Amino acid sequence: MTEIPAFKKNLPTQIAVLGGGSWATAIIKILTENNVKIKWWLRRKSDVDFIKKYNHNPSYLTDAPLNPRKVKAYYKMYDALQGVDYVILAVPAAFIPDALKNLTRNHFAGKKVVSAIKGMIPEENMLVTDWMEKVFGVPITQMCVIAGPCHAEEVAQEKQSYLTIGSPNIQLAQEFSNLMTCRYIQANPVADLYGVEYCAVIKNIVAMACGITHGLGFGDNFQAVMVSNAMQEIKRFLDIVYPQVNRDLHSSGYLGDLLVTAYSQFSRNRTFGNMIGRGYSVKSAQIEMNMVAEGYYAVKSIYKINEQHDVEMPIIDSVYRILYEKANPMAEIGVLKGFLK
Amino acid sequence: MTEIPAFKKNLPTQIAVLGGGSWATAIIKILTENNVKIKWWLRRKSDVDFIKKYNHNPSYLTDAPLNPRKVKAYYKMYDALQGVDYVILAVPAAFIPDALKNLTRNHFAGKKVVSAIKGMIPEENMLVTDWMEKVFGVPITQMCVIAGPCHAEEVAQEKQSYLTIGSPNIQLAQEFSNLMTCRYIQANPVADLYGVEYCAVIKNIVAMACGITHGLGFGDNFQAVMVSNAMQEIKRFLDIVYPQVNRDLHSSGYLGDLLVTAYSQFSRNRTFGNMIGRGYSVKSAQIEMNMVAEGYYAVKSIYKINEQHDVEMPIIDSVYRILYEKANPMAEIGVLKGFLK
Repeated sequence: MTEIPAFKKNLPTQIAVLGGGSWATAIIKILTENNVKIKWWLRRKSDVDFIKKYNHNPSYLTDAPLNPRKVKAYYKMYDALQGVDYVILAVPAAFIPDALKNLTRNHFAGKKVVSAIKGMIPEENMLVTDWMEKVFGVPITQMCVIAGPCHAEEVAQEKQSYLTIGSPNIQLAQEFSNLMTCRYIQANPVADLYGVEYCAVIKNIVAMACGITHGLGFGDNFQAVMVSNAMQEIKRFLDIVYPQVNRDLHSSGYLGDLLVTAYSQFSRNRTFGNMIGRGYSVKSAQIEMNMVAEGYYAVKSIYKINEQHDVEMPIIDSVYRILYEKANPMAEIGVLKGFLK
Repeated sequence: MTEIPAFKKNLPTQIAVLGGGSWATAIIKILTENNVKIKWWLRRKSDVDFIKKYNHNPSYLTDAPLNPRKVKAYYKMYDALQGVDYVILAVPAAFIPDALKNLTRNHFAGKKVVSAIKGMIPEENMLVTDWMEKVFGVPITQMCVIAGPCHAEEVAQEKQSYLTIGSPNIQLAQEFSNLMTCRYIQANPVADLYGVEYCAVIKNIVAMACGITHGLGFGDNFQAVMVSNAMQEIKRFLDIVYPQVNRDLHSSGYLGDLLVTAYSQFSRNRTFGNMIGRGYSVKSAQIEMNMVAEGYYAVKSIYKINEQHDVEMPIIDSVYRILYEKANPMAEIGVLKGFLK
């Protein structure tokens, strides 16, 4: 492990980014504004070849050019991981166990791991950072999470945005915040890794709930009440599962992240919920969307975790029953109405 | 004063509603779902005549029919006030002193006063309830405020909405909540009149700030950060100006009310701000809109009040400087960016 961070010696920081989606692409764009070398792993060789040739992602944020002197694409994960200081995880949570299945503890030894994922490992109902600690022995003090509020699309347009970097190792949070701060991004460190990570997970479920009620014909008044009640639900949950004295849920990394997702017409989770509200079955909504909405797995994990804690979480409960117990959405939201205020 | 509330004896509660705008109309629609008699004051005789003939407001929520057996319109305020239990104020704050100028303390003696106004009395930088106490001697324990989150338009459509009724007299808050609760409205009492009222005032300023930044080309990521920081600003202000132990700013009456306004494309305050961001002068934006945006007066009042308290309120300060000190919007938001996180 390097004692003096590379960027202080003016050497480029070596960073592996795993995943080829829009958020991974946005993170790479931000990092290349600073003194870094990126080793970018994508699953498909054809994507890697495309990027080598055209210097942008073929499928996401296609109009964001990526500096080829700073970014090299790989389809063999071993190659991408070699010699890096940081590993950024940006694969949907449900695919993480499969994507990393050939790796061992050695691949992560001495490396700092950053989760840019806003979901739970479904089979184990675990946060990504907890899972990385359990499976690869990465100490929690060597990990960060990146939270919004930040649509990847607005990063591509270089619109002023803010990020929150959570780590119990506040020095690491500061170091990685420096790497993620540039002309149009202000990244701020906080010590509350679990709070930020749980909040990022739950916001996707709330966005789904907003989509469901919108699909059922509820309006903006109801959505504002839903989001307010969701903040109360998040507070109750975190106060039990991971209490912390100085957590300010009004901060951008918590409330802001929830807002940008719950109010976005482009959020996958909201769109998925909207289809459910309009009468699609879970199966047909998934087929129609042809992608994973993180909130679908997240709600099951949070519901299961909360079976041990029994925190009052009526929004989570309703979304769970609609998605997993075939509860009728209108009847279920009818029940939920009585819990909100 | 009646000891047993009229509605408990099954006699209709007599309510004067002062003001002819969309919010006044929505409140009347809600009240008529219950056992009430409404005496509705409007400024123009032509509007009163129209309502008598066609049973709906000629200018606002025109497709909401109002039950003529429960609603009578007046253009003489004395007539509207006679014999009522409640007086609901629903005139823009800036016009209140003029609208009530011929009234005396006697007109309000023994009556409960409800403010549905989300603005400050400009000349005096006072909350409406404080002003009613000072000018007409209405005791604060006989007053309530109504807070959202509630677009009038969605009330007309009978979309499920929630209201918060604030009064230091929690019995009164409960009584009035009962009057405002119906099939599509759930009204909830809280004891924190000033907190709710200040929050309702400040949210209009925040909506204006959101409009300004949107007009300047900032995106959804920035708006989410702005709203999160605004909640922190509101908390700091209320904790100094009117501290209260059990205030939960995540509740619908605070956060929810802010959200529905800040995220509404139809908010007058947001629209006004948007024009400023796009380069209109304050004068030309006002002429173009041909109506009062409450936030325009509110920001001056809050700014002046805060001169005594010196709470850190960078968003309020920026909006004030843009509207009253001709600060260049882009330069001013450039400064504000550094305060947000």
